[in-house]
Amino acid sequence: MKEIGIGMVGYAFMGRVHSQAWRNVSAFFDLPLTPAMRAICGRDVEATGAAAQRLGWASAETDWRRLIERDDIDVIDICAPGDLHAEVAIAALAAGKHVLCEKPLANTVEEAEAMAAAAAKSTAKSMVAFNYRRVPAVALARAVIAEGRLGQIRHVRAQYLQDWIVDPDFPLVWRLQKDKAGSGALGDIGAHIIDTAQFLIGQDVVGVTGLTETFIKERPRPDGQAMEPVTVDDAALFVGRFEGGALGSFEATRMATGRKNSLRIEVNGSQGSLYFDFEAMNELWCTAERGGFERVLVTEPHHPYVGAWWPPGHGLGYEHTFVHEVKDFLEAIATGADPQPSFEDGLRVQRVLAAVEQSHGHYVGI
Amino acid sequence: MKEIGIGMVGYAFMGRVHSQAWRNVSAFFDLPLTPAMRAICGRDVEATGAAAQRLGWASAETDWRRLIERDDIDVIDICAPGDLHAEVAIAALAAGKHVLCEKPLANTVEEAEAMAAAAAKSTAKSMVAFNYRRVPAVALARAVIAEGRLGQIRHVRAQYLQDWIVDPDFPLVWRLQKDKAGSGALGDIGAHIIDTAQFLIGQDVVGVTGLTETFIKERPRPDGQAMEPVTVDDAALFVGRFEGGALGSFEATRMATGRKNSLRIEVNGSQGSLYFDFEAMNELWCTAERGGFERVLVTEPHHPYVGAWWPPGHGLGYEHTFVHEVKDFLEAIATGADPQPSFEDGLRVQRVLAAVEQSHGHYVGI
Amino acid sequence: MKEIGIGMVGYAFMGRVHSQAWRNVSAFFDLPLTPAMRAICGRDVEATGAAAQRLGWASAETDWRRLIERDDIDVIDICAPGDLHAEVAIAALAAGKHVLCEKPLANTVEEAEAMAAAAAKSTAKSMVAFNYRRVPAVALARAVIAEGRLGQIRHVRAQYLQDWIVDPDFPLVWRLQKDKAGSGALGDIGAHIIDTAQFLIGQDVVGVTGLTETFIKERPRPDGQAMEPVTVDDAALFVGRFEGGALGSFEATRMATGRKNSLRIEVNGSQGSLYFDFEAMNELWCTAERGGFERVLVTEPHHPYVGAWWPPGHGLGYEHTFVHEVKDFLEAIATGADPQPSFEDGLRVQRVLAAVEQSHGHYVGI
Amino acid sequence: MKEIGIGMVGYAFMGRVHSQAWRNVSAFFDLPLTPAMRAICGRDVEATGAAAQRLGWASAETDWRRLIERDDIDVIDICAPGDLHAEVAIAALAAGKHVLCEKPLANTVEEAEAMAAAAAKSTAKSMVAFNYRRVPAVALARAVIAEGRLGQIRHVRAQYLQDWIVDPDFPLVWRLQKDKAGSGALGDIGAHIIDTAQFLIGQDVVGVTGLTETFIKERPRPDGQAMEPVTVDDAALFVGRFEGGALGSFEATRMATGRKNSLRIEVNGSQGSLYFDFEAMNELWCTAERGGFERVLVTEPHHPYVGAWWPPGHGLGYEHTFVHEVKDFLEAIATGADPQPSFEDGLRVQRVLAAVEQSHGHYVGI
Repeated sequence: MKEIGIGMVGYAFMGRVHSQAWRNVSAFFDLPLTPAMRAICGRDVEATGAAAQRLGWASAETDWRRLIERDDIDVIDICAPGDLHAEVAIAALAAGKHVLCEKPLANTVEEAEAMAAAAAKSTAKSMVAFNYRRVPAVALARAVIAEGRLGQIRHVRAQYLQDWIVDPDFPLVWRLQKDKAGSGALGDIGAHIIDTAQFLIGQDVVGVTGLTETFIKERPRPDGQAMEPVTVDDAALFVGRFEGGALGSFEATRMATGRKNSLRIEVNGSQGSLYFDFEAMNELWCTAERGGFERVLVTEPHHPYVGAWWPPGHGLGYEHTFVHEVKDFLEAIATGADPQPSFEDGLRVQRVLAAVEQSHGHYVGI
Repeated sequence: MKEIGIGMVGYAFMGRVHSQAWRNVSAFFDLPLTPAMRAICGRDVEATGAAAQRLGWASAETDWRRLIERDDIDVIDICAPGDLHAEVAIAALAAGKHVLCEKPLANTVEEAEAMAAAAAKSTAKSMVAFNYRRVPAVALARAVIAEGRLGQIRHVRAQYLQDWIVDPDFPLVWRLQKDKAGSGALGDIGAHIIDTAQFLIGQDVVGVTGLTETFIKERPRPDGQAMEPVTVDDAALFVGRFEGGALGSFEATRMATGRKNSLRIEVNGSQGSLYFDFEAMNELWCTAERGGFERVLVTEPHHPYVGAWWPPGHGLGYEHTFVHEVKDFLEAIATGADPQPSFEDGLRVQRVLAAVEQSHGHYVGI
Repeated sequence: MKEIGIGMVGYAFMGRVHSQAWRNVSAFFDLPLTPAMRAICGRDVEATGAAAQRLGWASAETDWRRLIERDDIDVIDICAPGDLHAEVAIAALAAGKHVLCEKPLANTVEEAEAMAAAAAKSTAKSMVAFNYRRVPAVALARAVIAEGRLGQIRHVRAQYLQDWIVDPDFPLVWRLQKDKAGSGALGDIGAHIIDTAQFLIGQDVVGVTGLTETFIKERPRPDGQAMEPVTVDDAALFVGRFEGGALGSFEATRMATGRKNSLRIEVNGSQGSLYFDFEAMNELWCTAERGGFERVLVTEPHHPYVGAWWPPGHGLGYEHTFVHEVKDFLEAIATGADPQPSFEDGLRVQRVLAAVEQSHGHYVGI
Repeated sequence: MKEIGIGMVGYAFMGRVHSQAWRNVSAFFDLPLTPAMRAICGRDVEATGAAAQRLGWASAETDWRRLIERDDIDVIDICAPGDLHAEVAIAALAAGKHVLCEKPLANTVEEAEAMAAAAAKSTAKSMVAFNYRRVPAVALARAVIAEGRLGQIRHVRAQYLQDWIVDPDFPLVWRLQKDKAGSGALGDIGAHIIDTAQFLIGQDVVGVTGLTETFIKERPRPDGQAMEPVTVDDAALFVGRFEGGALGSFEATRMATGRKNSLRIEVNGSQGSLYFDFEAMNELWCTAERGGFERVLVTEPHHPYVGAWWPPGHGLGYEHTFVHEVKDFLEAIATGADPQPSFEDGLRVQRVLAAVEQSHGHYVGI
């Protein structure tokens, strides 16, 4: 089997889960290319070395430029904060490296445009890591809709609810800083539901109106030495229209006490509906023969990605979405296909994020 | 026990369920006033007479003015379409009759203002029939929030999803005609979630932005003789702000295939959350000691209204909300208290409905 | 419309809910006979009189023999404790009165045999009040099974879980006394799941093995003056076989903390399965096209009994099962059909209860 | 870090999932011993070699005796069918190798006794792979019960429902042959619920009565050449008592159409209850402050095993139970503690299985 060298930037949450994907994908899927985990890259020498050993990477680098230069590395996997995405991705693509980039694609529309342009120009493959597309239940949902089983789509109702910053003492981590993260709930999790919605119904959002809010205006710095202003939103709510005439209702918040990672989406069509909630990620609810919603346990061998794993009823977890992601990416590289979602898809999401921020405040008083 | 004479206008869906409430309330609640079902009023002599007999009314009238004139009638219960609300209610209040009026209060803000003014001037009592306030689970939810158990309220997520007009052959009944109903999903079911949201958190909506849509532009007339344009919305989606700083996300649609009567509302506060769906009306979900949602079966004797009924676990149905409504109305009349929700509350909802319609189209294109 | 005179024995829980049924059935169903609530019977003059007024009965009696003698009474509705069932029912049937008798039919197999014999001999109609057969979802489940949609039935898994006597201070009410109630959870709620199981699959239980237990051996008398031994079971568990080869697993307990009135039953067949839980009584879960369970909201006009009530999604409550029961009983009387479940059905359940008690203790030690 | 050599027998379903555990455990848990995947053993040279490569084993063996002899192997992991368990385990223990053995421990009580005796005599560690103990939700449930939060335990209601042999054309695989598997649903999945029940409440089963059934009497051989009798049960149902006075209700079946891998267990105590279903493996339902069941998403850092993985709401899958299993086993080896569940625990389960088979047929006819 032909090997392909992987280099990864970042070793925090996303780095750990991407590593898990690269480490295991070949044990479950028959792939044309076997990923070799060549190097992981971080700023801190010691921490990066420890991460390399623990996560299974053969070497460690402290400069992402060096990673791109290495001849034994064919793929750059970007798991760093958003402010690094554009620079790393554009350099990697220019060097002919394939790029898998975490979401949201960038911190601004301008960066995203530059990245999409670089991708278009490069012979290398690029993909943005909207991993929820690779939940088997979500992939099944798309297939059901694509087959026309729901008829004409009329409503998408998408929410991404978390509660990890409800505590006002939770510190000002990078995800709460505009210069690092671009935006707050909007870009971090709102981006996921925009992409998932567009993916599911095969229509792009064409207009939105909404609002954002920062409930807790300042938080302690991570070093605990001072309070500093929170520069991103805690929540974003918007409604909009899709190009095909469907209506969308969106809500992304990190302040939904009791909701941990509830990416939930319902699609209503003229002939049927379906519903998904990531907190029960192995289930898809589809309208069925008696007019109610059928709880489909998406663990059958014929369901997307599932045949590679365990028998029916033996559910998968969060990390499996990343295994599926790298599997599809490797197959695209091997066959020359364009991996999905593309940087162009990522740019489109970025434009919706920007429109939500622009629409803010246009509301009618009572 | 002192009797109080009831006269009702209308004998369709709302008339049937209000009759059930008047007929049974005294068997379950100890009331200071016993309702006597004196007369029902409709345009068709024969049909009204048949309804009187079947539903337990002592007589039938064909002119609502006559109903108001009758000395043996103290309460006018308005179950007619929205275009009649203002005229009947104002006349009844002027004649010193108590008025229970179906929702939405009126078809326009102007009508609602006139009704609220008439109510303010009258010595008689008036109430708008937002019956969902009287679901025991909703009443419990309000109590939980009022006690401060959820902390500061940040999110209200309210949807009212139905699917009874998904079929394009469904005829153009009065609820689909603007002159009769004022608006479509917006006023019929959107009004319910606005009222329920405001009731639950004790804050009024102060601004909205959103959109409405009519997916099916024309439908057969009830007589089947021709197609006619649908003059009301099929769906309304909007987001907004409450006076206390909470954000609201609202969606009312009759096009949510597979959702039958799903009035669902979630409230997130800084300390906890709760969730309700009318399709499982005996359940309230509240965050609990381990951080998850507890399914509370609202059938305990100490829960609101429930002590009058059956042992724990023996659930109530839709019609019981109306029994509770007339029970509260009769008690208010007897004690001289102001029944809730007032016509003023109904007017406030009307203003939100109007603002949603005005906001329509203010969205930002992608 | 022809009237039929009703006389009821008992005015406690069952008396209240039966009254509700008689009072409302004609407002919803077109019946050949209109029930006239002629008399209610209890031992205490004053309390019976008050109950008559509150519940809508025209008169009160204090001797059930007198009730049977009255010419204006055609139906005797027995809502008294089990130790009275046989005597009242046999006397009523001998007098040519139709009898609706609460469950379990009797306190012993011998009494039940005498009652079934009396019913067989009489020209009057008789019915045992296993009301759960009249839950629309249960009636729909039976129809689904009868149509063969589940194929050959292999498993019935039936539980009736309550928790109202978990508190050791809960007093020794009549339902906890063998001389009044015959048995405990076994006869009170175990009887319901045996009947429901046999009804659903159309097969009788032919053999059982199991055990019963009384966890709390003595309790305060209702007057609080002394502790007395509990003479009935708190819980009964058994497994068994049906005549057609299906296996049954049964559990009835009043000690399932957190379960209020959870009559739950699952049926597995070679082609499909279904599931019901009374705590969500408007739902039936049926396997559907994708192999999962579909949550059917049994509130559509074409579902059993539902057309008489409200639009889809507007659920019914506990008491409606009794409205359906008296509706079916009245129709049987009018048409001369044999009402179901018959006293013979009640006797069959009684035999299973007795076999469970006999099997007790036959277990194999480890 | 010190390495410990692992050798595994078998590479089918259990072999694949054990491999996944050995391959990943060190990336998530800080362990005193690092497992080195030295050799996998199977009868077919070619297939075993391919499995070794795919699953990450350094070498392949075709004779389990050879595996035991190898000096670089410290742990024998037995993933072979039940008829091999006793022989391999006893030999391995005699050679001083630690043994992790799949469940049920053996095919007969006699074999299990010999294995437990060998384990008692050996200085090496041994453990039986009842993996469901290591579902975080199950481990949390045990902790809740051990803390006394449920009070005195009264009921255990345990079911393991599958449907993979509903189709009569499903072939006679080894799990359907008594000489290979010992028994059918009883030993395969019934063993799991017996162990889980005993684990959860800390009480052993002391007596049972029940029945077993084989619905489909013969099936095609895997080669499709002939029909052969099914020599194991399709389903086993039993009730019993625990040493501390709790009652147990058990059901294991492979014929529950629509249930894929539903290991469900409810425990009722005098103070509270809890409920778990493996089909939603990241959830534990515990009674909470308002008397209902709280859905606890067992994905918080303080929950058992969870801190090693992902943020709240990012659920785990089936395979993670095995990662936790080998983690605990390695820690026990390193610290000299006795791993749980022991071969003695496995023997105890075996005795319950045997008692169920003996009790068969002792039922009372109706």
